[in-house]
Amino acid sequence: MSGSSFGTIFRITTWGESHGRGVGVVVDGCPAGLPLQEETIQAFLDRRKPGQSRYTTKRAEADRVEILSGVFEGRTTGTPLSMVVFNTDQRSRDYSEIARCYRPGHADYGFDVKYGFRDYRGGGRSSGRETIGRVAAGAVASQLLKELGITLCAYTRSIGPVTIRSFSQDEIANNSLYMPDPEAAREAEQWLESCMQQKNSSGGLIECVVHGMIPGAGDPVFDKLDANLARAIMSIGAVKGVEIGDGFSAASSTGADNNDAFTLDEQGRITKLSNHAGGILGGISDGSDIILRAAFKPTPSIASPQKTVTCSGDPTEIVIHGRHDPVVVPRAVVVVESMTAVTLADALLCGMGSRLDNVKKVWHHD
Amino acid sequence: MSGSSFGTIFRITTWGESHGRGVGVVVDGCPAGLPLQEETIQAFLDRRKPGQSRYTTKRAEADRVEILSGVFEGRTTGTPLSMVVFNTDQRSRDYSEIARCYRPGHADYGFDVKYGFRDYRGGGRSSGRETIGRVAAGAVASQLLKELGITLCAYTRSIGPVTIRSFSQDEIANNSLYMPDPEAAREAEQWLESCMQQKNSSGGLIECVVHGMIPGAGDPVFDKLDANLARAIMSIGAVKGVEIGDGFSAASSTGADNNDAFTLDEQGRITKLSNHAGGILGGISDGSDIILRAAFKPTPSIASPQKTVTCSGDPTEIVIHGRHDPVVVPRAVVVVESMTAVTLADALLCGMGSRLDNVKKVWHHD
Amino acid sequence: MSGSSFGTIFRITTWGESHGRGVGVVVDGCPAGLPLQEETIQAFLDRRKPGQSRYTTKRAEADRVEILSGVFEGRTTGTPLSMVVFNTDQRSRDYSEIARCYRPGHADYGFDVKYGFRDYRGGGRSSGRETIGRVAAGAVASQLLKELGITLCAYTRSIGPVTIRSFSQDEIANNSLYMPDPEAAREAEQWLESCMQQKNSSGGLIECVVHGMIPGAGDPVFDKLDANLARAIMSIGAVKGVEIGDGFSAASSTGADNNDAFTLDEQGRITKLSNHAGGILGGISDGSDIILRAAFKPTPSIASPQKTVTCSGDPTEIVIHGRHDPVVVPRAVVVVESMTAVTLADALLCGMGSRLDNVKKVWHHD
Amino acid sequence: MSGSSFGTIFRITTWGESHGRGVGVVVDGCPAGLPLQEETIQAFLDRRKPGQSRYTTKRAEADRVEILSGVFEGRTTGTPLSMVVFNTDQRSRDYSEIARCYRPGHADYGFDVKYGFRDYRGGGRSSGRETIGRVAAGAVASQLLKELGITLCAYTRSIGPVTIRSFSQDEIANNSLYMPDPEAAREAEQWLESCMQQKNSSGGLIECVVHGMIPGAGDPVFDKLDANLARAIMSIGAVKGVEIGDGFSAASSTGADNNDAFTLDEQGRITKLSNHAGGILGGISDGSDIILRAAFKPTPSIASPQKTVTCSGDPTEIVIHGRHDPVVVPRAVVVVESMTAVTLADALLCGMGSRLDNVKKVWHHD
Repeated sequence: MSGSSFGTIFRITTWGESHGRGVGVVVDGCPAGLPLQEETIQAFLDRRKPGQSRYTTKRAEADRVEILSGVFEGRTTGTPLSMVVFNTDQRSRDYSEIARCYRPGHADYGFDVKYGFRDYRGGGRSSGRETIGRVAAGAVASQLLKELGITLCAYTRSIGPVTIRSFSQDEIANNSLYMPDPEAAREAEQWLESCMQQKNSSGGLIECVVHGMIPGAGDPVFDKLDANLARAIMSIGAVKGVEIGDGFSAASSTGADNNDAFTLDEQGRITKLSNHAGGILGGISDGSDIILRAAFKPTPSIASPQKTVTCSGDPTEIVIHGRHDPVVVPRAVVVVESMTAVTLADALLCGMGSRLDNVKKVWHHD
Repeated sequence: MSGSSFGTIFRITTWGESHGRGVGVVVDGCPAGLPLQEETIQAFLDRRKPGQSRYTTKRAEADRVEILSGVFEGRTTGTPLSMVVFNTDQRSRDYSEIARCYRPGHADYGFDVKYGFRDYRGGGRSSGRETIGRVAAGAVASQLLKELGITLCAYTRSIGPVTIRSFSQDEIANNSLYMPDPEAAREAEQWLESCMQQKNSSGGLIECVVHGMIPGAGDPVFDKLDANLARAIMSIGAVKGVEIGDGFSAASSTGADNNDAFTLDEQGRITKLSNHAGGILGGISDGSDIILRAAFKPTPSIASPQKTVTCSGDPTEIVIHGRHDPVVVPRAVVVVESMTAVTLADALLCGMGSRLDNVKKVWHHD
Repeated sequence: MSGSSFGTIFRITTWGESHGRGVGVVVDGCPAGLPLQEETIQAFLDRRKPGQSRYTTKRAEADRVEILSGVFEGRTTGTPLSMVVFNTDQRSRDYSEIARCYRPGHADYGFDVKYGFRDYRGGGRSSGRETIGRVAAGAVASQLLKELGITLCAYTRSIGPVTIRSFSQDEIANNSLYMPDPEAAREAEQWLESCMQQKNSSGGLIECVVHGMIPGAGDPVFDKLDANLARAIMSIGAVKGVEIGDGFSAASSTGADNNDAFTLDEQGRITKLSNHAGGILGGISDGSDIILRAAFKPTPSIASPQKTVTCSGDPTEIVIHGRHDPVVVPRAVVVVESMTAVTLADALLCGMGSRLDNVKKVWHHD
Repeated sequence: MSGSSFGTIFRITTWGESHGRGVGVVVDGCPAGLPLQEETIQAFLDRRKPGQSRYTTKRAEADRVEILSGVFEGRTTGTPLSMVVFNTDQRSRDYSEIARCYRPGHADYGFDVKYGFRDYRGGGRSSGRETIGRVAAGAVASQLLKELGITLCAYTRSIGPVTIRSFSQDEIANNSLYMPDPEAAREAEQWLESCMQQKNSSGGLIECVVHGMIPGAGDPVFDKLDANLARAIMSIGAVKGVEIGDGFSAASSTGADNNDAFTLDEQGRITKLSNHAGGILGGISDGSDIILRAAFKPTPSIASPQKTVTCSGDPTEIVIHGRHDPVVVPRAVVVVESMTAVTLADALLCGMGSRLDNVKKVWHHD
């Protein structure tokens, strides 16, 4: 089925495989008049680029984005933005091992059952390179949100057993793990070194905070803002859990502790004394910071020998060679931020006609 | 926007408010030929019915479902099933307090910002009664899955600080908390008693396990099976977190521990030695049990006084009277099971044409 | 598949069969704050009610609509409107003939091939009674359009060989054929009498004109306003052709004749000197009247004997008894108007965020 | 809004402007295992290529398609096909005239109202070059239909006043107007010569016939097969009318004449004695040939002076220079065929799960 699209009004469609000609995205429904440059997109893509540290794949891709449509004289036209990154480093190597058997923790088996065969080169469609399209779209969505005064900040919250204990926004871009706590970053690096020595890999947590969110976005039932965020985040490869606000810890809390009292800020606007809810109540944004966390499983591609079966159903053992990050979390930070931005942009655009007076405002220039 | 629908091929649309004429659902896209009785639907609804124990609201609704369309001579016709439950116990009471100010932890403020006003009686559209439509649809989806050999089992995993330590499927229906561990159920009851005495409420965890899942359902990118499950579950009111398989604990695990080795079962079919993945790899079902957990926040309606503001922006205090469960988890068990069933049914129907040979099989009766 | 819904933001879902418990519609995405009464809906439904003249079925249905949700204190709340009409006159008669063989010109054969069996009573889901849901939704859409200054006027343009030669809006409601030309109406009545005497039936044309349309609705590619109107109108049973503006006659015209020159009206606003385009250019409304026509085939249920085959594939003959209009056009006038209104409402709501400045206007109350 | 996509399961998304970097399409939901070569796509594109005769624009584009994703070892993988045609002949010319004022019969005014500004170079998004993506997608859909035994044949039925009087399928590709009647083709050429001499243009009709259609495709209500075909065809620029089977002439016919009697063919399969319905009854294919016609208005770009207004609202006159076909019909033949193929492919894929036994057949390999 046509599962490569996300969103209703601000709608993105990604395409491309790891070892095909390239990867890309079509962003449809972006409002006209938004200032947009290739550099803005590129800056987002550079955050997920391989080869930035010894904890990311050595694949040497420049990942240069090209905008093929939808921009005229520096502004979006309202028609689809097509963005492409051509693959340049498709190393000619031996994929017979992946073709022959199913890698544990990978989608190989599911693809074969579902489609009857698969593009086994480098993961094909379920490669991390698919997220290039998401990040390009996220850059556009972020630009749109910025015009509305909304900014996003995603970072690594934990890697394996190491969790941040302090928060400095400036620090995030200062270490290759995108952690806002330099001390935790150093410990996490040591943890990753030991994983690599043991031909092992690590999971981790990413957190994303949205400042300046406008209240009233999201719908009461199935298109709850948190429901669509959950889908957006869980659709990122390797994510196994999503939570909003206090998340799982709310399950062991009580109403008296978990409820956020409403109050007025200094300007007399309605706000909350606490934010256990993470900025969303009943599926609708309440104007507080949106806070979400995503749990990433460890990279399944490890260099230790693993038991598996061949495509023809014989027991065998596999050792996975090649370029693999010992942890996907640092490069996934911008992917989480991007999917959050795309979801918020769509919710805001879908919700524009919720009130009759807004409909009149737009169409009658009231 | 039209946020009251869920699904692409098996598509459900719920409607109705707590204190309107009734609540219901339209299920469109259910295959023709499925045996279906009102009793099957009613059995599902009875699991979420109020008044079953002292931990659920005293609202005395029979919640009798009527199938208004889509069934002929005991089988579905392929056309939409319309199911309705008329509201019968809309007690005439004083809603001026809810109308006047915003209840902490509730959607009131969001509704007012979004729509300009709201049906303040009993929560309106964001009332738990909206889930009646979900459960009726879930009964249909479960019936469809049963025909394919797929069964679901949801239960309470924890309430407040009390988590199950043993598992007996027979026990689930034996206690009013739907816990598979009778000892934990007794402890949880004591915990709830203390919450009620303190005019407080509790959160909890629900787990759902799917047996007999067919491999190959779900799509590689945005319509990953786990992504759509995450949306489905997070769209249930009060859910703040969702996880699949090992979920959040995968974040602190390693690849060597988290990967599930493939092997062959006694019939020589491909299976896995472990199931950290929870039955989904790369967004596609792998044939193992699907395992998911949902974190529910504590019921926000508590009888203690809480700080808040009025709709006109004045600080005030509110004491919430009326019929409120001290914990939503027991009655939400069947809602989680229903939304899981609906998501799986849709994924299976959407994925039918993934292979050219399947398309030929259906249309040419190969 | 879930083919019972129409629209993206203003989304309607109809349900119900001719001889089931009732028929209805869920309207999701209607903006909050719209004044709405059951009487407004009923007035629309009364225009398609049976038994109004000797040219419409004698089925004696009151067709009373009930609004079950989505309205509070006389205004829409932004949540789904559920509207239902219970079937009251499901005469107990003999359907063995329809069950046994395929009626020419009907959907019977298609249903059997598609679904394996069918509800053969009175046409089941493909009965004209399905349009009750469309008309109820159309009444809501028309109310929304009225608030924006947009009004619709549909009428019978021709019945069989008789076409209107004059136009008087007041006349439309004055004759049971909804023709704006009383003389043509009388001739059409004579034509229908002769059809009935010969146990035959007649086709006809309906025209719909939209005044006060706001320019800028509709999208440039697949969601062109005329494309969605074409789908909406062609989805009405018995429609075999749709045209906009000059329609088919444009095919034999030239650019010099067909182009509409732009000019300024007395208030200095941009308008056109002619309207061959029927108010839509490049898929986007241009502010002129939208003009469309729908061609209806003759009622397939005729009392003369017809050749056909049985479900088991034996040649046979059928004579169709029962309550059947000799022409569907008069009762379909309000259906065409309704589907037009629904399509326009959705296009206006979908197009609200086409410009960045509109997005800012709504969310920042600029 | 995201109006650049079409289809539910077989879903296409086009992008690109006349004078941007290129145009293209993403085809999502195509079943895996379909043999596909760039040459197959190219053969379709060559049928709409400019510069083939003196009646088509002199724009010298090779229009070479590249498949960037979704094919592996000569077969589709089930993941999105991204296809692109880079623009090569974007002549540097003066667009100040189009930028300054609104061309009659064009989308210019609508774009300005809707988006606030527009890419005025060569029509931007509403250029005929957008159809390149449709045709590439149509080639894929046609390949899929071919595997199911379904073939399509589209041709020019009339140009201006000249209509075909005979039908020879072989003749269609023999003349640059794609007419199946060589004599009519010669007359139509003379008509076009006279149009060109008078700096005028012509409309025309395209007919498309589908052989070997499988019965049971399409849904009973809004996703009627003819409804979706009507949308698909009306979404092609310049189309002002669509009809199925007898179409508009059914409106002046009677039931006795218009009904198609069912009968058995030589193999004992159910068929019809006539085909006034054009292969679709009640929105569902009946196995007979699907027949549809599209009415195209004359090319609005004519070299004669025309009255119009400037963007700032001043009356003016415009003379349109540049490369323009005197009739769009011949090059649109393959576009009509393509959109028909895409619609049928989607209907067949959406309808696969209509019956419980089909669902079992696919998932349990019954």
